[in-house]
Amino acid sequence: MIKLDQHPAGRHFLQIPGPSPSPDRVLRAMSYPTIDHRGPEFAKLGFKVLSDIKKIFKTEQPVIIYPASGTGAWEAALVNTLSAGDHVIMFETGHFATLWKKLADNLGLKSEFLAMPDGQGWRNGVQPGMIEARLREDTEHKIKAVCVVHNETSTGVTSDILAVRKAIDAAKHPALLMVDTISGLACADYRHDEWGVDVSISGSQKGLMLPPGISFNAVSPKAVAASEHARLPKSYWGWKEIIDVNKTGYWPSTPNTNLLYALAECLDMLLEEGMDKVFARHNRLAEACRRAVRAWGLEIQCADTAVYSPVLTGIVMPEGIDADVVRKIIYERFDLSLGTGLGKVKGKMFRIGHLGDCNDLTLMATLAGCEMGMQLAGIKLAGSGLPAAMNYLCEYPGGLLA
Amino acid sequence: MIKLDQHPAGRHFLQIPGPSPSPDRVLRAMSYPTIDHRGPEFAKLGFKVLSDIKKIFKTEQPVIIYPASGTGAWEAALVNTLSAGDHVIMFETGHFATLWKKLADNLGLKSEFLAMPDGQGWRNGVQPGMIEARLREDTEHKIKAVCVVHNETSTGVTSDILAVRKAIDAAKHPALLMVDTISGLACADYRHDEWGVDVSISGSQKGLMLPPGISFNAVSPKAVAASEHARLPKSYWGWKEIIDVNKTGYWPSTPNTNLLYALAECLDMLLEEGMDKVFARHNRLAEACRRAVRAWGLEIQCADTAVYSPVLTGIVMPEGIDADVVRKIIYERFDLSLGTGLGKVKGKMFRIGHLGDCNDLTLMATLAGCEMGMQLAGIKLAGSGLPAAMNYLCEYPGGLLA
Amino acid sequence: MIKLDQHPAGRHFLQIPGPSPSPDRVLRAMSYPTIDHRGPEFAKLGFKVLSDIKKIFKTEQPVIIYPASGTGAWEAALVNTLSAGDHVIMFETGHFATLWKKLADNLGLKSEFLAMPDGQGWRNGVQPGMIEARLREDTEHKIKAVCVVHNETSTGVTSDILAVRKAIDAAKHPALLMVDTISGLACADYRHDEWGVDVSISGSQKGLMLPPGISFNAVSPKAVAASEHARLPKSYWGWKEIIDVNKTGYWPSTPNTNLLYALAECLDMLLEEGMDKVFARHNRLAEACRRAVRAWGLEIQCADTAVYSPVLTGIVMPEGIDADVVRKIIYERFDLSLGTGLGKVKGKMFRIGHLGDCNDLTLMATLAGCEMGMQLAGIKLAGSGLPAAMNYLCEYPGGLLA
Amino acid sequence: MIKLDQHPAGRHFLQIPGPSPSPDRVLRAMSYPTIDHRGPEFAKLGFKVLSDIKKIFKTEQPVIIYPASGTGAWEAALVNTLSAGDHVIMFETGHFATLWKKLADNLGLKSEFLAMPDGQGWRNGVQPGMIEARLREDTEHKIKAVCVVHNETSTGVTSDILAVRKAIDAAKHPALLMVDTISGLACADYRHDEWGVDVSISGSQKGLMLPPGISFNAVSPKAVAASEHARLPKSYWGWKEIIDVNKTGYWPSTPNTNLLYALAECLDMLLEEGMDKVFARHNRLAEACRRAVRAWGLEIQCADTAVYSPVLTGIVMPEGIDADVVRKIIYERFDLSLGTGLGKVKGKMFRIGHLGDCNDLTLMATLAGCEMGMQLAGIKLAGSGLPAAMNYLCEYPGGLLA
Repeated sequence: MIKLDQHPAGRHFLQIPGPSPSPDRVLRAMSYPTIDHRGPEFAKLGFKVLSDIKKIFKTEQPVIIYPASGTGAWEAALVNTLSAGDHVIMFETGHFATLWKKLADNLGLKSEFLAMPDGQGWRNGVQPGMIEARLREDTEHKIKAVCVVHNETSTGVTSDILAVRKAIDAAKHPALLMVDTISGLACADYRHDEWGVDVSISGSQKGLMLPPGISFNAVSPKAVAASEHARLPKSYWGWKEIIDVNKTGYWPSTPNTNLLYALAECLDMLLEEGMDKVFARHNRLAEACRRAVRAWGLEIQCADTAVYSPVLTGIVMPEGIDADVVRKIIYERFDLSLGTGLGKVKGKMFRIGHLGDCNDLTLMATLAGCEMGMQLAGIKLAGSGLPAAMNYLCEYPGGLLA
Repeated sequence: MIKLDQHPAGRHFLQIPGPSPSPDRVLRAMSYPTIDHRGPEFAKLGFKVLSDIKKIFKTEQPVIIYPASGTGAWEAALVNTLSAGDHVIMFETGHFATLWKKLADNLGLKSEFLAMPDGQGWRNGVQPGMIEARLREDTEHKIKAVCVVHNETSTGVTSDILAVRKAIDAAKHPALLMVDTISGLACADYRHDEWGVDVSISGSQKGLMLPPGISFNAVSPKAVAASEHARLPKSYWGWKEIIDVNKTGYWPSTPNTNLLYALAECLDMLLEEGMDKVFARHNRLAEACRRAVRAWGLEIQCADTAVYSPVLTGIVMPEGIDADVVRKIIYERFDLSLGTGLGKVKGKMFRIGHLGDCNDLTLMATLAGCEMGMQLAGIKLAGSGLPAAMNYLCEYPGGLLA
Repeated sequence: MIKLDQHPAGRHFLQIPGPSPSPDRVLRAMSYPTIDHRGPEFAKLGFKVLSDIKKIFKTEQPVIIYPASGTGAWEAALVNTLSAGDHVIMFETGHFATLWKKLADNLGLKSEFLAMPDGQGWRNGVQPGMIEARLREDTEHKIKAVCVVHNETSTGVTSDILAVRKAIDAAKHPALLMVDTISGLACADYRHDEWGVDVSISGSQKGLMLPPGISFNAVSPKAVAASEHARLPKSYWGWKEIIDVNKTGYWPSTPNTNLLYALAECLDMLLEEGMDKVFARHNRLAEACRRAVRAWGLEIQCADTAVYSPVLTGIVMPEGIDADVVRKIIYERFDLSLGTGLGKVKGKMFRIGHLGDCNDLTLMATLAGCEMGMQLAGIKLAGSGLPAAMNYLCEYPGGLLA
Repeated sequence: MIKLDQHPAGRHFLQIPGPSPSPDRVLRAMSYPTIDHRGPEFAKLGFKVLSDIKKIFKTEQPVIIYPASGTGAWEAALVNTLSAGDHVIMFETGHFATLWKKLADNLGLKSEFLAMPDGQGWRNGVQPGMIEARLREDTEHKIKAVCVVHNETSTGVTSDILAVRKAIDAAKHPALLMVDTISGLACADYRHDEWGVDVSISGSQKGLMLPPGISFNAVSPKAVAASEHARLPKSYWGWKEIIDVNKTGYWPSTPNTNLLYALAECLDMLLEEGMDKVFARHNRLAEACRRAVRAWGLEIQCADTAVYSPVLTGIVMPEGIDADVVRKIIYERFDLSLGTGLGKVKGKMFRIGHLGDCNDLTLMATLAGCEMGMQLAGIKLAGSGLPAAMNYLCEYPGGLLA
């Protein structure tokens, strides 16, 4: 094994907004010997993960599992449903919405970015009203899809997807609704069927607590119908053959067997705990984190309290402080990885992930690392953030009492 | 962990032609906690695997590592270098050549299949003469690429790639040479640069002894130049951004971190052993296997002794015997997975993989399982194949003496 | 990790009569993080293993689990029940009976070895008649214990323990019956209560399929009563405190937590399979092994067909052949570990273990390695042993049909 | 795997004073398949651990490795060197000194407890002056051994062993010096040879960061000489045979192979870091912990600042508070295991372990858990302890700068 960690002792704290820490059960499950992906044992595994993953997306429709990162699943959603030159609208919520838009352009789609003025999009959620207005203008229905990010990982904002659905319906527009819930799924509530999403895109390395390497498309019948006429070239990503072969418990090409072991283990863990408890757990840690940020006298990147993310919290640095210098100090001194500011907010903020296999003390350790690092970087804090977080954690029980 | 194996005791023998058995070192390396793919430790890992994988392909050029299966890497090779309607020729060597052709068609390319008559393509290697002749006809150079399979996993034939290169050169044709060495790499000698290959495609789960989930494109400067003008839509697969970002030790989108741990471990193992020894080891087991087949009085799928595969051996069943019934008996009674006959040879043959983390006794166990299963299936064998294999293994030392 | 294996590729075949190969499930279970051995979670583990291990010994009485090797459990049995100078009789069945006798002498006991003439003890089981006769002579009941080995690991002989019990009863003698079933337990039937054994001694690394490091004393009420008056010094091994504290799910001193994880996993595996099936599985592989030995024209160390061991088979080398030279060839060439000849039979025989996590093909691999190694060592065999073994394995189904 | 952890998510914080948290590298090393403990590969492992462990004890003399817990190594030290009725003096430093004395009595030794008045022994280290005085009285040299605990795990006191050596020398007394450094070794400096220790006893699950299951006796030539005449019965623990067989890289009985893998890995880690850095790391975390305790306005169990333990800190609860109630709250709410008060201080204090694979943030998490739990238990703290600890950690760099 290549020696990666130069820190003298102790476990690394991986508190980026994904990959999230994986439970020991999951890491060990992943290390079982690979089996024949065409043999009888494999079908048991295939049926299990294909069935259980639906419960996470809250759908009765097929969920396609790709051996690919989330970026691949973004591409899959588009190439299955659209044709060259199709017009799609996207909403600028941050870096990942921007990357997805760029990917759409790369594929030859004509994407249009709806954005709040003055960069406010990076501090707020999707604005359904703007989408509705835009769709109403599109009387010829040239817009083929509305693409939004559920939990924007670059800012810590969780948009209201049901409101987007209602906006599309209010405009009586036939556009497909595609939602990136890569970092939202299994952290924040998500309801593919009930919210009328046509394609939900997700990945393994966030709320599902797996290492990266598999990603998902949950599809609606309308999306499947669209895929039959869509003309962007597709083969690896093609839903049809995968859905057909999945009925037998197998995949048309070689699946990521060992990550499927890990997925099976993780699905067991989440479903045993119950999704409502999973969401409550994330919300609780997120609120404790925000209390610390406020006690430090710092600003939270998300400016709208209604759409705070349960997955991560972005912390805005005071003027003159390079967030990446702070992160470097924290990494070197305290063996803690935090998320960098991405795109437009590079250097201006950093991100704390509080998703996946975390608990109260993981969060307290993280906050302590942040506080010490910020002090070493010369930031004047209004006060220690730890008591504020601790008071909240004490007041609202987690742990065995949760 | 979902319980997959219903066999009462002992280790499963995974002797399909990939996924191959993974060494314990590799499985444990893969189970280390995931690290930040944007952090300083990751770059050490990134540089290591990006550098060492070149030694396996024998290239000085970039090797792109995808979080995807081999099928994805097939697609990547095509979408990076070609445009809709481009004419490519492929050579029918078996099921995987056929699948690759189908994938090219799915992407909107105009593929042409060169094939030996009477299904002989499934028992022989690529015929460079046929390629040369076809290219000579193409005086307008409409053919943009020649795509061949190095080791055809469905039949057990390892074609002579240098001869294909020479054929293209003899025809003075500018077509790109693309080679699928998914199952050949790290089992049979392969020389990306020396043989003038433009895109070499490979995967993790064969000679590299990893679980499935990552795949590769090794590229030539000519291929990279072609990618700048190719117009098939591409984003996830796009070489340019990956090559650029790889210079820093990172990837533009989330890499398959835990499989990269495994890759690093495996590269160490292969390079410590030395590639020539790795190839000799595979050849030795393959020859021992063939000796058993001959002693059984059965036919080897590969009809040309010059292109026997070191990776796998296809065994043709006598008339009236369903190869999959034999495989089922062997699986249920002896906990041994063998490769099924694919496509045109379904039911007519089965395949023994002798690649990856195998040794003399793994092969003997496999041959014993085959022999017992064939007897239980009512096949009249000319004799036991085991003594023939054992005599060869004794005569040509492996093990610590190798 | 220190690199131990110099063999170029493939899995080592560990076919010594213990440590036996451990299932992957067990190895991974053992690698979970250690927990607090005084905390609430630990008691769940403690109760589980203390309860389930009784089912393996077939006893309702306490089973003491020591963090120690089997040798420690030998010592524990003696120091708990006896006093300095106490007279015990043991029966010479081979090397381990001899070592146990030596250990008794080291502790200051007066041990007497009953032995068949002409070294026949090393080729036969315990002779109950000899024990009965000796006990009848002891009219003053100076003999405090009869100590016998259930499965003699050095020779491959499984003695009839019930017959020994009957011999003691027939002699109306109050001596304690102590039985070493270190390698017998969970391979051959064993009934602590029904057979009236006072102390049964076992270890982890044989039929229980764990790595070495824990060992056992199953005790009878009579043995416990004896322990209250026994005057050999004892503290670490003392049953009383352990039995008392075990009632709470804990141990008085620090237990071997991670091996207890492995034990819990292994107990699940054995009890799910069912002990009768476990025994049948061992018997079947043992008979297949013996058929090969006979086909080679070689002698089995155990001369009495009624007491063949299901655990291992000793193979006597022809005159002039050093068994350890043969073993060395097999190890170096074929990555297979076999048991050496111990004590009086050093160099004259070697031992094949067919216990633990083995199956038909593991055995066939092992027999192939032996056959090739013997041929390379110049032994003239009567014929290949493999067909004889295969015919038996085919005739009597194992695998999923078992 | 039996499901032990009922906490909903996140990693358990194991901050008891041993077993300490094991590094991932060590846990994975332990899970490699067991090898033949009589084969050639094993000797490489044996030589390595036998050689490297000497560097940890700072001795040129043999170190015996037992497959046993630390309690077994206590017994081994005594039975190898003493005879029934021998007079030994021990020093009451806390619970473990008391347990060792009880063990000596169980073995038939005549132990005498030197103790400070008024229970002060439980808050201070060994008093060399008292030992010297007692030895001077013993003009007939009836006292055969002086037994002291280096780091008393029940109180958090690290005694000055060199001062004990000097006391014995000053008294010109031939008694052996035996030192329990079970929890001290590899946390606090320890010098078997330089300090003239005759038998040093240690275990795996503290500073060596392994799971429990192996323990040690480092011996002096004088101790070895004593063992030749000592008449306490011994066999399993007997040094002589082990030392002899160790010269070949093997053990006379079955060693704990998988824990030896872990030991090899751990020794690599410690020796790569350098023992002085290891000690500095422990001291730094200990001081940060004590600063938190003082800021809480609570008393540290160790009353003598000169002998504060780098391994653990005992925290005295205010009158009327049951420390175990506090611990239960902390365990249930915050998934953190702390050490209970043992023996005379049961319910009056709890212990924080800061040894093994820990770092700054592990400690901060632990302190946060303690602080929250104490508040929930109704303890009035003088203030938050976290800022005090953080200030210290910031002032004195650890991490990559260490």
